[in-house]
Amino acid sequence: VIDAADTPYLEVDLDQVERNIARMQRYCDDHGLALRAHVKTHKIPEVARRQIAAGAAGIVCQKVGEAEVMAAAGLDDILIAFPVIGAAKTRRLANLAARARVTVIADSHAVLRGLSAALAAAEVEAQVLVDCDTGLHRTGVGTPEAAATLAVEAHALPGLRFAGLFTHPTPADAGLLHAARRAVEHAGLAVERVSGGGTPGAYATHLNRGITELRVGSYVYGDRRCIADGTLSAEECALRVRTTVVSRPRPGSATVDAGSKTLTSDPARGEHPGFGLVVEYPAARIVALSEEHGHLDVSRCESAPAVGETVTVIPNHACGVSNLHDSVHVTGAAAPEATWAIAARGAVR
Amino acid sequence: VIDAADTPYLEVDLDQVERNIARMQRYCDDHGLALRAHVKTHKIPEVARRQIAAGAAGIVCQKVGEAEVMAAAGLDDILIAFPVIGAAKTRRLANLAARARVTVIADSHAVLRGLSAALAAAEVEAQVLVDCDTGLHRTGVGTPEAAATLAVEAHALPGLRFAGLFTHPTPADAGLLHAARRAVEHAGLAVERVSGGGTPGAYATHLNRGITELRVGSYVYGDRRCIADGTLSAEECALRVRTTVVSRPRPGSATVDAGSKTLTSDPARGEHPGFGLVVEYPAARIVALSEEHGHLDVSRCESAPAVGETVTVIPNHACGVSNLHDSVHVTGAAAPEATWAIAARGAVR
Repeated sequence: VIDAADTPYLEVDLDQVERNIARMQRYCDDHGLALRAHVKTHKIPEVARRQIAAGAAGIVCQKVGEAEVMAAAGLDDILIAFPVIGAAKTRRLANLAARARVTVIADSHAVLRGLSAALAAAEVEAQVLVDCDTGLHRTGVGTPEAAATLAVEAHALPGLRFAGLFTHPTPADAGLLHAARRAVEHAGLAVERVSGGGTPGAYATHLNRGITELRVGSYVYGDRRCIADGTLSAEECALRVRTTVVSRPRPGSATVDAGSKTLTSDPARGEHPGFGLVVEYPAARIVALSEEHGHLDVSRCESAPAVGETVTVIPNHACGVSNLHDSVHVTGAAAPEATWAIAARGAVR
Repeated sequence: VIDAADTPYLEVDLDQVERNIARMQRYCDDHGLALRAHVKTHKIPEVARRQIAAGAAGIVCQKVGEAEVMAAAGLDDILIAFPVIGAAKTRRLANLAARARVTVIADSHAVLRGLSAALAAAEVEAQVLVDCDTGLHRTGVGTPEAAATLAVEAHALPGLRFAGLFTHPTPADAGLLHAARRAVEHAGLAVERVSGGGTPGAYATHLNRGITELRVGSYVYGDRRCIADGTLSAEECALRVRTTVVSRPRPGSATVDAGSKTLTSDPARGEHPGFGLVVEYPAARIVALSEEHGHLDVSRCESAPAVGETVTVIPNHACGVSNLHDSVHVTGAAAPEATWAIAARGAVR
C-alpha cells in the first residue's frame, strides 16, 4: 500500500472512472457504435475489465507487449493499433492469436506478408483492418486504390481475414475512408468494420457516417489535454498526482517533488502552458520541470503552499504519466482502497 | 535476453562507458576533485560499481528509492541530492543510514528538523550539506547568512553532522558559495566539502576554486544534450536506442516504433531540434513523437530506410530514456553480451 505521505504517487478516483466509462458507453450505445477501449491510458487490467463490463466490444493495445499483459488477465478481444513487423513480433502475435480474438492493422505488403507467414505457420487467424492515412501522416495508405490492393491481398493470404478499414484520428472529412470503402467493395470484399479513434472529437463520431467503431482511451481518466479539448472538466479528471512542496527557494517560487519522471515532459495543448494544474492552488503555474523537481510560480497565489505541504496535480497527459509509475492508489466507493499495479507499464515492444 | 529483432530497445556499449568513466575520473584525479557519480543517468548498480572501481568517492541519488536500490546492491557511500521531507521518507532515510554512509542536503529548518528527528530516533547519523541557490532557483538558500544559520542548526541537531555546502549546477560565478563558506567559518564551523555538479561545464570545475567534489551523471552515457554542450561527441555516446521503421506513409516520411514512451518528450538543447539523432541516416530528422511512433522527415536523405529496417538513435536525454525501460542490452569486449536490469528505474519516491 502506498503511504499517503510518501509522494509523489498517482491517485485514481474509481467512482469518477466509472462515471467517465458510463458516459462514453452511453454515447456509443445511443449511436450504434462499437466502443473499443484503448488501454494505453491506464495500462491496468482491472480498469479494462470495467470498460468491458460496461459494454465495450473489446480493447485496443498499441504494442504486442501490452496485449500480452491484457490477454494474460483474461481480456480476449484485442485490436493492436500499430503495424506489427519483424519475426520476433509476429511470432508473439501468433501466440496471442491462439489465446484471444485478435485484430491487426496493415498499411504495406511487408506488414501483411510478415503477419500471414507467422499466423499461418501457427495455424491461427487474425482479422485485418487496412490502415488509411486521413491526414496525420503517421501510418496508413493514402489512396483508395492502395487500400483496395491491400484488402485483396489480406483476403488472399493465409492466417488473415480482411475485416475493414482503420484510421487515426477520425477525420472531420472522411473522404478517403468513403472512397476506400467503395474501392474495396468494388473489388468484391465486404467492409464489416470501419474503425476511428481519438478522445478529442469522440462525441462527434456519429456525424461521420460509415464509422462503426470508436477507439478511445483518454476519456477514462481525463487530463489537461482533455480539458483543453473540452471533452472533460477538471472535476471529471480521475487521475491525479500527489506531490509535496520540498523547497521555497525564494518568494513567489515553490518546488515540488514531481518532475518530468512523474509528470512527463509532454506539453498541454492550446492556450495551456505549463506542466499541470495544481488543484488546491489554481493560480499556481508549473513553469518548468527537472527530472525530479517541479518548478512552481506561486506569485499569483493569495497564499502559497508551505514546505512539507502536499498538493494535487492534474497532469497534461494521463497516458504518459501512467507509463512512468509502477502502481496507482485507488480510492472511491466503487472499490476498497487499494494499490493497483500498472501491469502494462513500459510495454514498448 | 533481448531479441535484436524485437525493437525498440536500449543498447549500451560498455567499452565506451569505461572510456567515458576513465576520462572524467582522470580529470578529477588531475585536479584533486572527488568524483561523485550520479546514478540518475543509468540507474544500474553494475555501472555504479564500475564508477567506484575507477576511483569515484561515492554515488549520488536523487531520491531515497534510488538510494535503497543502490545500497541493496552494495554501494555504501551515497549523497541524496534532494530535500528529504515527510515522516515516510525520513524513516526510510534512517534505515538507509544504518546500512550506508549517507549525506543529505537541506535548505530549510523544516527539512533539517525532520531529518534530525528520524535519524536521532534510529540512533544513526548523516552528513549534511547546506544547499545554496546559485542561480537555478530550484532549491537552496539565497544568502550567506541563511547558509550559516542552517549550518549552525545542523551542527547542533542530533543525528546530523554538518559537513559543507552544495549547489547545482556549479555556477560560473561562485560568489554565494565563497560568501557562504566565510559566513559558516565565521560561525566557527569547518567546511569540509563543497559539492558542485553537472556534466555541462564539468571539465571547467577546477577553475572554480573552493569546489572539492564534482557530481556528474550524463558523462557516463552521453546524449544529444552532451553533444550540444560539447562534452561528448556522437561517437562517444554509449547509450543507443534500436528502433524499426514500421511505415513509410508518404515519400519523405518514415515512422519508427520508438515514440515518447521510448525516447521521452525531452527537448535537446541549443540549435538541435527534434527528438534524437539517427546514426545511419544523419540527414533524417525526428520531427515529432507520438507515444509509440517516431515521425521522421527523411526527405533530405539520399536513400531512406525501408519498412522493416532497424536504425539506431542517440536520444536527447539519456537519463529520461533510462527511466522508461526495464533493461538494457549490453555489448562490448568489457563484458559478455548480457541484459542488465535498470534496477532503479521508476524510483521517484
